[in-house]
Amino acid sequence: MIVVLTGGTGGAKLIDGLAAEIDPAELTIICNTGDDCIFHGLHISPDIDTVAYTLAGLIDDAKGWGIKGDTFTTLEQLGRLGADTWFKLGDKDFATHLMRTRLLSESLTLSQVTSHIRRTLGVKAALLPMSDERIETRLKTADKEFSFQEYFVKERWQPEVSKVFYAGVEKSKPAPGVLDAIGSGSGIIIGPSNPVTSIGPILAVPGIRDALKETSATVVGVSPIIGASAITGPAHKLMAAMGMGTSALGVARAYADFLDVFVVANEDKSLRAEIEELNVRAVTADIRMNSPADKKRLAREVLALVKK
Amino acid sequence: MIVVLTGGTGGAKLIDGLAAEIDPAELTIICNTGDDCIFHGLHISPDIDTVAYTLAGLIDDAKGWGIKGDTFTTLEQLGRLGADTWFKLGDKDFATHLMRTRLLSESLTLSQVTSHIRRTLGVKAALLPMSDERIETRLKTADKEFSFQEYFVKERWQPEVSKVFYAGVEKSKPAPGVLDAIGSGSGIIIGPSNPVTSIGPILAVPGIRDALKETSATVVGVSPIIGASAITGPAHKLMAAMGMGTSALGVARAYADFLDVFVVANEDKSLRAEIEELNVRAVTADIRMNSPADKKRLAREVLALVKK
Repeated sequence: MIVVLTGGTGGAKLIDGLAAEIDPAELTIICNTGDDCIFHGLHISPDIDTVAYTLAGLIDDAKGWGIKGDTFTTLEQLGRLGADTWFKLGDKDFATHLMRTRLLSESLTLSQVTSHIRRTLGVKAALLPMSDERIETRLKTADKEFSFQEYFVKERWQPEVSKVFYAGVEKSKPAPGVLDAIGSGSGIIIGPSNPVTSIGPILAVPGIRDALKETSATVVGVSPIIGASAITGPAHKLMAAMGMGTSALGVARAYADFLDVFVVANEDKSLRAEIEELNVRAVTADIRMNSPADKKRLAREVLALVKK
Repeated sequence: MIVVLTGGTGGAKLIDGLAAEIDPAELTIICNTGDDCIFHGLHISPDIDTVAYTLAGLIDDAKGWGIKGDTFTTLEQLGRLGADTWFKLGDKDFATHLMRTRLLSESLTLSQVTSHIRRTLGVKAALLPMSDERIETRLKTADKEFSFQEYFVKERWQPEVSKVFYAGVEKSKPAPGVLDAIGSGSGIIIGPSNPVTSIGPILAVPGIRDALKETSATVVGVSPIIGASAITGPAHKLMAAMGMGTSALGVARAYADFLDVFVVANEDKSLRAEIEELNVRAVTADIRMNSPADKKRLAREVLALVKK
């Protein structure tokens, strides 16, 4: 079993490649839920959905979220009824959130709901939320505080963030199966996701970081950064806010206590020596995933590293 | 102010005609909520929605419910996710139910939510639920019990009903404005709606029947029955189950204690004498409403009667 810790976009691309290279039933995906949010009274789990849609072959590749070809009839009508519509939810996508919200209201856990959704979508990989409890990534600026979606979507990640925290994480526990998967996996992959708002919340759930330190499986991370910028999104800005620097080296440092191998961009080969000083093997690769071929190639390279 | 008590289909057609004949701002509609139901975790008020969509010019005339031209993308996807889909909800329609459910969860009353929805849809008539409390019309057969939607939509009103009751009605009270509207209206119209499952629940809310008896306004009813059958739907079958007979006379008897005038089909002119024995003036008209012209003509005739 190959275990992947991931957020949305970048991690989902690598998972797409992994599912093409090995039997998807041999994948266990542990998903960030710090971006979960409530819109129109519905519980939305953006990272879980992006991964589920990716594995179901439904993802809108051009956008990196939502279902391809989806329409926005319900959302437009909600706008007419006075609702905020800056968070884009398609008509098919609404079905996922309606089903999740109803099952949660019937006292199923987020794990159980996620399992129902991925099974009905025909996804063979196991898909686990990092926790069944509500954990919310919050971002502070000098005078405001945002949820991740407010910061990322509504404010287009322009505000100058001074602090990021994961509300509720201290009292949370990993979802059923998370620690077992990390402990018994034959290889662990940390996806090329934002270390502050995608991987950070997962690592902050009590017990997960220790499980990563203790597992006998090889733990391979993939950098989401090339040079001083994230491949997509605000990872470098948020890393700077957290005093982590803005390079792949900063990511390596954040994971060094449990990481065996770190895959960085060919462009960052000069960082190899410093990364290896952290007792982390540094490997270079072409980490951009612009095509299905890119995703599969990087997945093959990462799989070769975890299986060592 | 003209006040109309109504369910869905037949009543909504007459309201359509009324809104064409007088300023809609002079209409107050009191709607049955006994058909309200929960699907996909959303609170649906079918009669309120049919009336609101009618007055907003959105109603799907061919179906008699829902929004014209609506698509069913969300519902189809919910089906893929394992949900029951026999209750047809369109994508635009979902927006109404999402908004209603969210506002109810934020502690607004059904009256307040209904007011928000009708205003944002541009409806000028006042639209009041019969009660803000949950009242559920239940139908019993020899061995089963159904909600109205289960009986009407899922079972296509085929089961042999032995009893109809309105769960929760004894402890309910009329929504704000309902008794005032009936007391101070210049005319009251009882729509050509099912007397058992549309008008019956409204009359069963404590205080409403008394207000109808006491109002100084003329109360005019329109029959939903021609001969021994409802113009649409199962009114005659449910009337038989309730021991009310299956004719317009049975409807007149059920309303006789508060009715001043009853409009029956030309075909039922032979019932006039018996109706007038109930101390109710009987008037005949063409009560079928198959076209906009029909709706307006009947509305004009009814308005002439209430204004006397």
